[in-house]
Amino acid sequence: MERTLIGELGAHVGETVSISGWVDVRRDQGKMVFFDFRDRSGLVQGVCLPGSPALDTAKETRGEYVVRVEGAVNKRPEKNVQAGKQNGGIELEVKAIEVLSRAEALPFDLDADLTLETLLDHRPLTLRRERERAIFKLQAVLLQAYRDSLIRQGFTEFQAPALVGSDAEGGAEVFKVDYFNDQTANLATSPQLYKQIMTGVYERVFTIARIFRAEKSATTRHISELTQMDFEMAFIEDERDVMAVLEAVMRDVARAASEHADLFFAVGAGLPLVPDAPFPALTLREAQELLGISTSEPDLEPSHERGICEWAKLEKGSDFVFITRFPTHKRAFYTYEHEDEAPHSRGFDLLFRGLEINSGAQRIHDYAELVKRIEERGMDPKNFAFYLQAFKYGMPPHGGCSTGLERLTMKMLDLDNVKEATLFPRDMNRIDVLLSSADSDGPDGA
Amino acid sequence: MERTLIGELGAHVGETVSISGWVDVRRDQGKMVFFDFRDRSGLVQGVCLPGSPALDTAKETRGEYVVRVEGAVNKRPEKNVQAGKQNGGIELEVKAIEVLSRAEALPFDLDADLTLETLLDHRPLTLRRERERAIFKLQAVLLQAYRDSLIRQGFTEFQAPALVGSDAEGGAEVFKVDYFNDQTANLATSPQLYKQIMTGVYERVFTIARIFRAEKSATTRHISELTQMDFEMAFIEDERDVMAVLEAVMRDVARAASEHADLFFAVGAGLPLVPDAPFPALTLREAQELLGISTSEPDLEPSHERGICEWAKLEKGSDFVFITRFPTHKRAFYTYEHEDEAPHSRGFDLLFRGLEINSGAQRIHDYAELVKRIEERGMDPKNFAFYLQAFKYGMPPHGGCSTGLERLTMKMLDLDNVKEATLFPRDMNRIDVLLSSADSDGPDGA
Repeated sequence: MERTLIGELGAHVGETVSISGWVDVRRDQGKMVFFDFRDRSGLVQGVCLPGSPALDTAKETRGEYVVRVEGAVNKRPEKNVQAGKQNGGIELEVKAIEVLSRAEALPFDLDADLTLETLLDHRPLTLRRERERAIFKLQAVLLQAYRDSLIRQGFTEFQAPALVGSDAEGGAEVFKVDYFNDQTANLATSPQLYKQIMTGVYERVFTIARIFRAEKSATTRHISELTQMDFEMAFIEDERDVMAVLEAVMRDVARAASEHADLFFAVGAGLPLVPDAPFPALTLREAQELLGISTSEPDLEPSHERGICEWAKLEKGSDFVFITRFPTHKRAFYTYEHEDEAPHSRGFDLLFRGLEINSGAQRIHDYAELVKRIEERGMDPKNFAFYLQAFKYGMPPHGGCSTGLERLTMKMLDLDNVKEATLFPRDMNRIDVLLSSADSDGPDGA
Repeated sequence: MERTLIGELGAHVGETVSISGWVDVRRDQGKMVFFDFRDRSGLVQGVCLPGSPALDTAKETRGEYVVRVEGAVNKRPEKNVQAGKQNGGIELEVKAIEVLSRAEALPFDLDADLTLETLLDHRPLTLRRERERAIFKLQAVLLQAYRDSLIRQGFTEFQAPALVGSDAEGGAEVFKVDYFNDQTANLATSPQLYKQIMTGVYERVFTIARIFRAEKSATTRHISELTQMDFEMAFIEDERDVMAVLEAVMRDVARAASEHADLFFAVGAGLPLVPDAPFPALTLREAQELLGISTSEPDLEPSHERGICEWAKLEKGSDFVFITRFPTHKRAFYTYEHEDEAPHSRGFDLLFRGLEINSGAQRIHDYAELVKRIEERGMDPKNFAFYLQAFKYGMPPHGGCSTGLERLTMKMLDLDNVKEATLFPRDMNRIDVLLSSADSDGPDGA
C-alpha cells in the first residue's frame, strides 16, 4: 500500500492507510497500546485495540522505533477531540505494524528540559525533539527568504572560498590550515574581499558563506564556525541605499517567518514586530544620548544594544533598529569615511531584539585611498594585491552588509544561546564531542 | 536624474536618460568617440558627437572606467541596425560623462584568448569578460534550480559544518586545522554523516556544502575546495527512489539552464540534451560489455565514461546516463550491499556529457550492520560514536547522492577545466595567487 503522510490523514477518514515514521510516544495500557506516530509532516495518535493481530509487535516497540503501520483512520468521539491540535479529530486504529528499524532505550526523556551540554552531546537524537525541529525548520525558511528577496532585487549569488591566503579583515583571530608543500593557509573570517571583487563583475551580489572565528570566546553570542549571509551592491549614493535594501530583505524574511507561526509556537517565541513606518535609525551619538550614557565611547555595549531595542519596541513598535555613524577607526579598513562627519564613518549596524545581527557600510572604491588606508593600519598592500586589482581597474561606489544566520535564528526564536540555533556548533571545547587532549578518541583519531 | 539600466533603454527611445556602468570599449575617432557601455543588464553603443561638451571627458576615459552618462536614446539609421543583438537598434548620444572611478591601462586585451594562468592570476579583472560573466551567472541559475526542485519535493535545507573531528569517508586526503588548545581538526571532505543524521530528523534534507580535498591531484577535473550539492531521503524502497528524485532535479536544473540560452551562446556551448524517456541506466557490467572491455574492473576509466556518454547521446538522445551496481568494496563504508547481487552495491553514478557529476547510493540503516562495516574497513567505531547515535535510536531505510556544482557547471558549458567553472579555484599551487615557499608575500603574510 502506498505511503500516506501523517499530515494528510485528515483527508482519509474512513479509509485504511499505510503510514511510515517513528514511534514518538508509546503508552502500554496492558490490553491496548496507545501511540503517537511522527513523520516529517507531523503527529497522529494511534491505538492498538485488544485482539489486534498487531498487539504483540505494538508491545515490543518503544520510542524512536521506525515503523510502517497499516490502520484505519477513524474520527474520534466528540469528547476526545483535541481542537486546534494537528490530527486532533482523528486517530489511527492500528491493524499491522512492521518494524523497519529498532531503537535502544533512550538515554533520557526527550521531552525533559535538557541542559545545553546534553542537547549538544546527543544532537543526532535531540534534534528530533519538536523544539529543535522547529528551530532548524525556521532557519531554513529564513535563509530561503533572504536569498529569494535578493534574487528578486536583481542580485546574483556567488560562491566565496573558505580557504584563503591572508586574513581579510586584518583583525579577528584566524584558524591556520596545513596546505600543500608546507604552506600555511587560513580559514576565511569573512567573504568581504571576494564580495567586493564580485561587485565589480555583477554590481549586485550575495553569498551564503561558511566563516570561521578562532577567538577564544565563550559568550552566548559566539561560535567558531558560522553561516554568514552577505550582500554587496554597486552604484549607490551612500550607505542609505544599502540600508534600504537590507530593510526590504528583513521585511521579506520576517514575513516569510511569520507564515510559520506554528514554529514560533513550538519554541514559545513571539512573531517579529515589524513597523509600517521605516525601521527606526539612530546615530551612535543619538543612541548614547537617549540612553543617557557617555558619548565618547566608540561603540555600544551589549546592555546598551538591549536598551536601544527596548526603546525601539516601545516607542516605534519595531524589533529592528539601525545604528549609524560609528567612528571610522573602529570599523574595517575598507569602510568609507563620512565626508561631513569625520572621524565618523558610513558604517551601520542593524539591531534586532537586543542584539546586533547585521553590520554594513559604504566601502572605499578609490584605489589610492584604499591603499593609503591599508598602510595606515600597518598592513602591507602587497598582501592585498589580488583584491586591489578590482580597484585598479575601475570600481563603482558600493557598499554592503552581512547577517549571521545563527544569530538571526537565535533572536527570531528568543533563544538564550546561539549554540541552540546552530545544528552542530563548534567552540573552544567542542567539535560534536567534547575535546580533551587526554582523549585518544578526539578529532585526531580515525 | 534616476538611473536607467542599459537593458531597459529600448523602452526609452527619444528620451534623455542617465546610465551608470563601465566603459567596455572606447574607439576614439578624433572628431567623435564611440563607446560600448556595460552594466549588469547588458551593453549599449554610445557616441559622443563633434561639439559635444562631453568630448574632452570622452577622450580621457578608457576601458573599465566607471562612468555616469547622460544621453539621448536614438534609433539607429536602418543600415546600422544590428538585428538579434541587445540594443542593436538604438544608440546613446552622449551629452555628459561623469567619471566615478578611473582605471589603469589594462594589462592585456580582455577579449583575447587568455591562458588559464592569466585568467586566474587576474580574476578580479577577467571575471568581467562576457564569457566569465556567463559561466558564473549560469552557475547561480543551476544552484537555485537545484534547491528549488528539492524544496518543491519536500526537502529541508540544513547547514553542514566544514570543521570536523575525523574524516567521514575514511578515504580522501584531508586538510588539518590547528584548533584550540593544541587540538587538530579536519576540513570536511563530505557532509555525508551529517546528512544522514539530519535524515533521521526531517526525512528529506539537502545541503549546499563547502568541501575540501587535499589530494595531490593536478587533473582538469580536480580542485581542492568545492561546492557540493547533497540530498538524502528516508523511507525509500531502494536506490531507485533516490535516482528518481535526482532525475527530477536534473530535469528541473536542465530546464532552468535552457531558459538562459544567451549564456550558453556567450560561451559557445550547446543546450543539454534531455530525453523524453527516463534517463538511460546501465549496470557497470552492461556498460563494460557495451564498450567491449573487461568486466572484471571495479570501475570505469575516464575514457569509458566518455564512451558510455557517446552511446547514450547517439542511441538514447540523452546527455545523462546512470551507471549502477558498483562493487561494494569500491564504495564508501556506509553503502548498502545489493541483497541479490553481492558483492555489488546499491550505489550509482550519474554521468553527464562524458563525466561523473553525481555519486549516490542506498545507505546501511541498521546499527549493528554499520558498526560491522566500519570494523571491516579497519576503522574504530568509537571514532564514529556521535554519528552512530542516529542509528542506535532508529534510522529508516534511506539513501542520497551528491553533485559537484563546479563539475556540473563545467560540463553544462563544455569547459575544458573545472577551474574555469570555479570563481577562485584552490589547488596545490594556488590560493588566488601562485604559492611559492620562497615568496614572503604568500598566504602566510598579513
